[in-house]
Amino acid sequence: MTRHSAVPPPVTAVLDASSTWLPARLADAEQRLREEVRGHGEVLAADASSTLEAGGKRLRPLLVLLCAGPESQSGPAVRAAAAVELVHMATLVHDDVLDDAPLRRGRPTVAATSGRLRATAAGDLLFSRAFALLARAGDARAIELLAWASVSLARGELAQRQDAYDTSIGEARYFERCRLKTAALFECAVRMGRDEEALGAFGAEVGLAFQLLDDVLDVAGPPERTGKARGTDLLDGTVTLPLILAGESDPGLLAADLRSLDEPAAAALSDRIAATDALDRVRARALEMVADAKARLAADTGLGDEQRHLLELVADGVVQRYS
Amino acid sequence: MTRHSAVPPPVTAVLDASSTWLPARLADAEQRLREEVRGHGEVLAADASSTLEAGGKRLRPLLVLLCAGPESQSGPAVRAAAAVELVHMATLVHDDVLDDAPLRRGRPTVAATSGRLRATAAGDLLFSRAFALLARAGDARAIELLAWASVSLARGELAQRQDAYDTSIGEARYFERCRLKTAALFECAVRMGRDEEALGAFGAEVGLAFQLLDDVLDVAGPPERTGKARGTDLLDGTVTLPLILAGESDPGLLAADLRSLDEPAAAALSDRIAATDALDRVRARALEMVADAKARLAADTGLGDEQRHLLELVADGVVQRYS
Repeated sequence: MTRHSAVPPPVTAVLDASSTWLPARLADAEQRLREEVRGHGEVLAADASSTLEAGGKRLRPLLVLLCAGPESQSGPAVRAAAAVELVHMATLVHDDVLDDAPLRRGRPTVAATSGRLRATAAGDLLFSRAFALLARAGDARAIELLAWASVSLARGELAQRQDAYDTSIGEARYFERCRLKTAALFECAVRMGRDEEALGAFGAEVGLAFQLLDDVLDVAGPPERTGKARGTDLLDGTVTLPLILAGESDPGLLAADLRSLDEPAAAALSDRIAATDALDRVRARALEMVADAKARLAADTGLGDEQRHLLELVADGVVQRYS
Repeated sequence: MTRHSAVPPPVTAVLDASSTWLPARLADAEQRLREEVRGHGEVLAADASSTLEAGGKRLRPLLVLLCAGPESQSGPAVRAAAAVELVHMATLVHDDVLDDAPLRRGRPTVAATSGRLRATAAGDLLFSRAFALLARAGDARAIELLAWASVSLARGELAQRQDAYDTSIGEARYFERCRLKTAALFECAVRMGRDEEALGAFGAEVGLAFQLLDDVLDVAGPPERTGKARGTDLLDGTVTLPLILAGESDPGLLAADLRSLDEPAAAALSDRIAATDALDRVRARALEMVADAKARLAADTGLGDEQRHLLELVADGVVQRYS
């Protein structure tokens, strides 16, 4: 349920398959993003700059630009692409604040503490910049979509904190959290590009599949590929679908006291989850969602052939990332 | 330089002097605020609810409504009033995250930690709700003003973190931080109500005076009136104008190692600052600013007589609060 992953989605494959407009616009969005993070007379805290550099493959900006299409005006599309990534970065920075503190190291070092202070403010700044960027240009509908997604993200984060260490969490609650924490920003990105309901549903479903597969990866590893220890979610007290489903065939799993886990115990618990059919079942669900999502594209008759093809590649890429 | 204060500004005096429209609109804004914090299907974290209850006297919403005036449309004014207070509350909640952790108690307890986790997300949610509220209604200019102020707040917070424990900070830097951290949201509130430059300058100057006097109070106490220990800013490593000016006549003050302060040492350092003429000088500056601010009101010829009179009362109230 963390949003971090060292395995980038295959944005490259999409860009390779695209004609020149998409890479050009993504480069513009990247430029805009850098200006927003670095410009305006102050140096943003190291946290934000490193997040910018580490920033994955800009999947959300790609979705904005791809859905907007080659015929759309470049200005609003590029601004929306930068804004959605600023909000995503803000959540990463705030996640770092939360994750760094007591759970990985037992208690904060002085360095971790001063990092946390800076990071809270840096996240707020990134977040504010996203709205300021759109507000300056008067992009009213984009602001509305982004505000809705931001509320969802924060509600998802709160829900996750409220649920922490509770192994009685069911599927419905898990999916609600995923919709809030991940799917909403994907849906927002898509609709900022092209505000159609069917396309929004495509975005939400791809986002949901993305989160499910991320949660599989947290259990399955391997760490050298994911860049994090296995069972990070378990250490954070975050109960995800793999544990929920594994508990059906191995109920003893749900009796585990997540508060007392250390890294070896989290790895052992991950092994025990992986020994059930849970990971296969979660993967199968995600594949179904991706198939559903692709089918929805047909309902949006305004999409060009290239756009539809590239969106299918994005959806496939979310799966391939884990195969 | 903290934004907390147990001494409420005399909003009551302004409401007593007003005809019925202002109290009625403030009650509407309060209602709206409660709906935003409590509604939408989830219980906001205790942090936000307690901030709502403790929430002082709603000085910023008062400024919005007062500047909008009795002839303005109620809907946009009430929304703007609620939104500006949501952003203010978000900063208080995030300030609590930062202040609670290592500086008051040496290191976080488990309770402080889980509070901090929740509070970061709760602040994000309040912040997002402010923009969502305005975006739903399409209040484009209000969003632009609020986004600008939010960027300023976050920049001010970052600047304060960057400056922490640095006793070589000068006046110019201090005033820059005050403008970002406090004056910007006052200016925003005023301009959300009535978007005139002279009125905006009034708001900024009142905000600046407010911050200066708050910083005097942090040194002068007494704690039973302020609700916090003397020298809280010093303990946080925040160098404010009283220390900067005191250092001119007692340069040894600037050699103090703020990192090693405990509460008794902070109280002793406060005494030493108070023994200079620094507090009187800061108070005099704040009084000048308030006089300047009031003079600016004459330049906005669109203000009604009652509005102008009540705005003068607000400015006076900022001073009386500390007399």
